[in-house]
Amino acid sequence: MKARSVEGGTVTSPQGFVAGATYAGLKVKGGLDVGILYSEAPCFAAGLFTTNRIKAAPVVCSQKHLADGRGRAIVVNSGCANACTGDQGMRDAEAMTELAAKKLGITPGEVVVASTGVIGERLPVERVAAGVEKVSLSREGGHELARAIMTTDTSPKEIAVKVDGGGFVIGGIAKGSGMIHPTLGTLLCFLTTDAAVDGRFLETALRDAVDVSFNMVTIDGDTSPNDTVVILANGMAGNEAFTQGTAAGEAFGEALTEVCTYLARRIAADGEGAGKLIEVTVEGALSIGEARMAARTIAGSPLLKAAVHGCDPNWGRVIAALGRSGAEIDGTRIDLFLDSMCLMAQGVPGTFDRDRAKAVMGRSEVPIRVCLNLADCSATAWGCDLTAEYVAINSEYTT
Amino acid sequence: MKARSVEGGTVTSPQGFVAGATYAGLKVKGGLDVGILYSEAPCFAAGLFTTNRIKAAPVVCSQKHLADGRGRAIVVNSGCANACTGDQGMRDAEAMTELAAKKLGITPGEVVVASTGVIGERLPVERVAAGVEKVSLSREGGHELARAIMTTDTSPKEIAVKVDGGGFVIGGIAKGSGMIHPTLGTLLCFLTTDAAVDGRFLETALRDAVDVSFNMVTIDGDTSPNDTVVILANGMAGNEAFTQGTAAGEAFGEALTEVCTYLARRIAADGEGAGKLIEVTVEGALSIGEARMAARTIAGSPLLKAAVHGCDPNWGRVIAALGRSGAEIDGTRIDLFLDSMCLMAQGVPGTFDRDRAKAVMGRSEVPIRVCLNLADCSATAWGCDLTAEYVAINSEYTT
Repeated sequence: MKARSVEGGTVTSPQGFVAGATYAGLKVKGGLDVGILYSEAPCFAAGLFTTNRIKAAPVVCSQKHLADGRGRAIVVNSGCANACTGDQGMRDAEAMTELAAKKLGITPGEVVVASTGVIGERLPVERVAAGVEKVSLSREGGHELARAIMTTDTSPKEIAVKVDGGGFVIGGIAKGSGMIHPTLGTLLCFLTTDAAVDGRFLETALRDAVDVSFNMVTIDGDTSPNDTVVILANGMAGNEAFTQGTAAGEAFGEALTEVCTYLARRIAADGEGAGKLIEVTVEGALSIGEARMAARTIAGSPLLKAAVHGCDPNWGRVIAALGRSGAEIDGTRIDLFLDSMCLMAQGVPGTFDRDRAKAVMGRSEVPIRVCLNLADCSATAWGCDLTAEYVAINSEYTT
Repeated sequence: MKARSVEGGTVTSPQGFVAGATYAGLKVKGGLDVGILYSEAPCFAAGLFTTNRIKAAPVVCSQKHLADGRGRAIVVNSGCANACTGDQGMRDAEAMTELAAKKLGITPGEVVVASTGVIGERLPVERVAAGVEKVSLSREGGHELARAIMTTDTSPKEIAVKVDGGGFVIGGIAKGSGMIHPTLGTLLCFLTTDAAVDGRFLETALRDAVDVSFNMVTIDGDTSPNDTVVILANGMAGNEAFTQGTAAGEAFGEALTEVCTYLARRIAADGEGAGKLIEVTVEGALSIGEARMAARTIAGSPLLKAAVHGCDPNWGRVIAALGRSGAEIDGTRIDLFLDSMCLMAQGVPGTFDRDRAKAVMGRSEVPIRVCLNLADCSATAWGCDLTAEYVAINSEYTT
């Protein structure tokens, strides 16, 4: 079975999902800022959340509501993170789930809540309430919802894939932009599928997919208190529930990984102020963990990011970042490639065509590959270049 | 005993030290780039080096030469890091020590070597040789040497202190600017003293001083293969050798920490593109290690750094960075201060005067204090704001 993307696909592409969004006045710059995603049938649900010890109120609330492995709706706002807001914040997050539940005729426990935006300001619940009331849900509403969760994102991130022969669809939307780092950055990602998936396997498949996608994206090394990845599976495709260790389950997992990887790459490419995607592959590491650590450290190096911005083939910065990553290395075995150009072989700098290297670095995607030649574990991480625009965006975020 | 700074003090302020520097044509932009520091008497010596697994050739060479706890001279160049240069790089580093030894009439094993600049390019040994020959040593030469080790630094960093009643002087010079992070960044620091210090204690005192100074400075999270901090103690003050656990030894350690802290703060304030020093103090942590981890993570947050640049009192970023630092925290106990202004008390955001907060953030030194209120361990870290200038410097470093 092979997944192919659905044209114009989004989070409402799988059967039985509707969504909508509205403008409730939470964002300084205006635009959609409150949205709802709803499944016409009850769902198995799983979520992954920030590893930051400071957890925003909606994260704490959603973890509680997802504890039974069930969920049916997601209510979300941008413009205010409802983080560092104490007990009041918890009451406000719960209130959001109650408002959505009332509108949808379900219980608050079936509602997941997510917020993104400025930390430390109280959620304007009245405005959110008016927004929730106004939202109108439709099969096309996934596109609106994808825009409603944007903060400094420059474009919505959405996709759906259909698995040939599998008879089911997986859809997803995400937002990223700043405060992005494994594990996880300021990102929200909502995934849906009409496949029936065993609850326990749903969580495993989500974790596996996130490990090689969102957990491999770094924009700036900062992580947020609000990161939330949630999947709802409503079973309307009518298949026998996918379980672990079966061919069908594996096909589901692969398709889910494809969706998450697409969204993760889009988040990296649309990092705050970014002009380019940096893709770093580390091969030949002693373990997957070390390969990931090395790839993420290189992709996150501010010096490398700045060099990529300026198309400066200052490859020593790749090696310096590798060296501090904590991964086991042998300096005399390292090969380094920019696209197909070998810059260093067996630890010795080669001569290379600087103009060609600059040309590669001028592309919208800059592929860097490091072969450690120690064993056979590999990993890929995504980042973006560091620009003056990043500084501008983040030096006047709340003012 | 109390240390007071010596006017116009530098690395040649202690008795018996001479230095000098010259222009050997290693730096694209010109300026002093090869220098020598020499003690008229043999010295106990100790060094601390990069923790990056990729170690530049001069680091490997200096570690070998310092293994006996003795040293008498330092030869240094800027403009080329002699890192990632394979066996040839090792031969070139050894050659630098031989050239300096020959000039000074000592053995290569008594010479420490350090390089800073672009990674991955071969050291132009002939130019270095011509430079070493040209260098003329003098009691005032510390000032030249401080300039010769600069790369993107905008000003030399030098100091000397005299301990009242102690009868000895400690001098030091340092360079920093980019690729700076605990433990350690791209920094070179050469320290001298005319005190007699027991060899073993010298190393302990250096480690203790570096732990609270250079290891608490972060510019950009990147660490270099070249970091080197070396101290030479020539005993010309004629004191009985300082040892651990004595009042005199303690006074020496305090004075050394004062010298290192001054230089570390100067490095932070002169970080690449920086306009301001950020001083982060974390109090009430469970352990010194956790306090340091938290302070460094906050000081290194690119989002906070950008906010400080724009005088944007977006204090949620302090809390978000704290939350990902790994330090134990209780969100309901945290107090947060900007200078003397309380922004958050017991985990609850307070109301504060935004204009006053902006004014504080407009100063050349921005003090941030976090009280975890868990125990009584504290630490201070230093960083700088993130500016478009940092991006500009680092997007065209080799081109």
